Amino acid sequence: MNDVTRAVVVARTPDGPPAPEDFEVVEVPIAAAVEDQVVVRVDVLSLDPYLRSLLGGAHLDDPPVAPGQVVPGRSVATVVESRSTEVPVGATVLAETGWRELAVLPAAAVSPVSVPDGVPDSAMLGPLGMPGLTAYAAHVRHLTPGAGETVVVGSATGGVGSVAGHLASLAGARTIGIVGNATKVELARSLGYDEVVVRTAPDWVEALHAASPDRVDCYLHMGDQATLDGVVEHLAVGARVSLCGLIDQSNGAPPTRLRAGALMAARATVHGMVVHDHADLAADHVDRVAALLATRRLTLLEDRYSGLESAGAAFAALMSGRNRGKVVVAVSKESQS
Amino acid sequence: MNDVTRAVVVARTPDGPPAPEDFEVVEVPIAAAVEDQVVVRVDVLSLDPYLRSLLGGAHLDDPPVAPGQVVPGRSVATVVESRSTEVPVGATVLAETGWRELAVLPAAAVSPVSVPDGVPDSAMLGPLGMPGLTAYAAHVRHLTPGAGETVVVGSATGGVGSVAGHLASLAGARTIGIVGNATKVELARSLGYDEVVVRTAPDWVEALHAASPDRVDCYLHMGDQATLDGVVEHLAVGARVSLCGLIDQSNGAPPTRLRAGALMAARATVHGMVVHDHADLAADHVDRVAALLATRRLTLLEDRYSGLESAGAAFAALMSGRNRGKVVVAVSKESQS
Repeated sequence: MNDVTRAVVVARTPDGPPAPEDFEVVEVPIAAAVEDQVVVRVDVLSLDPYLRSLLGGAHLDDPPVAPGQVVPGRSVATVVESRSTEVPVGATVLAETGWRELAVLPAAAVSPVSVPDGVPDSAMLGPLGMPGLTAYAAHVRHLTPGAGETVVVGSATGGVGSVAGHLASLAGARTIGIVGNATKVELARSLGYDEVVVRTAPDWVEALHAASPDRVDCYLHMGDQATLDGVVEHLAVGARVSLCGLIDQSNGAPPTRLRAGALMAARATVHGMVVHDHADLAADHVDRVAALLATRRLTLLEDRYSGLESAGAAFAALMSGRNRGKVVVAVSKESQS
Repeated sequence: MNDVTRAVVVARTPDGPPAPEDFEVVEVPIAAAVEDQVVVRVDVLSLDPYLRSLLGGAHLDDPPVAPGQVVPGRSVATVVESRSTEVPVGATVLAETGWRELAVLPAAAVSPVSVPDGVPDSAMLGPLGMPGLTAYAAHVRHLTPGAGETVVVGSATGGVGSVAGHLASLAGARTIGIVGNATKVELARSLGYDEVVVRTAPDWVEALHAASPDRVDCYLHMGDQATLDGVVEHLAVGARVSLCGLIDQSNGAPPTRLRAGALMAARATVHGMVVHDHADLAADHVDRVAALLATRRLTLLEDRYSGLESAGAAFAALMSGRNRGKVVVAVSKESQS
């Protein structure tokens, strides 16, 4: 057993959008596993926008991650040593390992997963993981789109959006994907959106109106204030909005706000979404989405980086909207093959 | 049949909060009723905050009421002449008469009402009318307070709030009434609120926190931006908010907005309320609330003015928050007795 492992630490607290230089790969000590602990090898690391607020200390329940500390993060990992009767060597698990090659964790803190046939392990971090569960829960509990309704999905090609848009299409809805720049239009179309709107284009509100002549019945919000305003002012009567992510706020912009008068005019219902509240849906979610992936009706859309050294750049790309799907980093040699 | 009637017209479009001088009593011509029309005598006129936006042209579906036009409004009225087989002379009706003594209307546009025993006619404009239905619908469809939950009611002593607070108490909730100034505290206590907070006091947020140590589960919003902010930042997980009225916006203040991050942190659900969507609840509402009024468990709280001349001052008092319950104007001699 090694007594050090490679890890990514915070080099400096990001000021605004994170940069690759805010992160640094170092060697950190690793203790031997004691009773009821396991050592896991990080195979594929998940990068997620909520990390940005953890780094800045804006997260509600957690202290900020200070310079010198290992960046927190979730991964698909393989148990390489076990001092637990519950979790055998060789098991594939989901765990909060942080950005590192090896991690020692309580056996109770890792979740063995059974990856469905025909689906890569990393799907457990995207469509079969928290982003997919976010989309699934927003779909079945908040948006509930019906046939013929118009559904707008913010960050249409991201980890959440790509699943949400597909579920809405399968429900018979007309789907409009919002993307951050013109390079993502074709990608969004390939995912099956009926219409794609580039929210950074000067006439994007007109484009949204043209794409939704009957206004917007369902809106999955991930994005900035301007996107929220544009869609909220164009809601149909009886509209449902799920607030899934506020990217601007993670980057230190002023708080995102919704105009109350527009919500009243539309008799809209707005739901604040925190995915952890919907863990009871996880089994349904995995069944449903794994079947879609296995039959290729849902594309596994990943931006896959290789090696811990790439994690900082991958995170910067994610937070500036340059990703084209779920961002993951293949850390172990086994996962880079 | 008279060929003129007295009416209140807009003298000038209000700029900010309305003043008595914005209104003027004049004689206006009145036509003879033709086939399928009725002539009604206005007994009690209802004054409601939504009129403010009608006068300013901010209402979505209607053109503004221009100077010289009769002020629109709903009343309890008595049919004094009928050319309809559907509505007999002597019937008590609800109708959009405007602020006038006599009105000629299509018989199909008046709604005969049967006022429950032991309840004055004007209750049809307050707890048994639109304000009461607003409170009832928000209670059963949006807020759904449970025993032990904390319910905050904005404009606690108004036409909507006084009913909403009572329904929440009957559901076993702890109720906190928000009032606009210290003179209304005792009134609110007499209505049964467990706690009363004066939103114009400098330490009102601290008072709200002290009154709701477990945060706020349900919030009926009627009020201004500061009130909305104070309550929304103090929501409990799983909170429900019903947006029933935005007084500041009626007076020309900047649009009221809700902070999305606070809604996400609380996993809150926000509902835009427009009472007309809940007409299907009217029968249940009248049954329930009439029983409460008849048995004196719910107080009929009215600011009752006499004569059309008083309507402008009554409306100005309502829009500046100086009312102490539902504001009505007794117009006919019969209703002033």
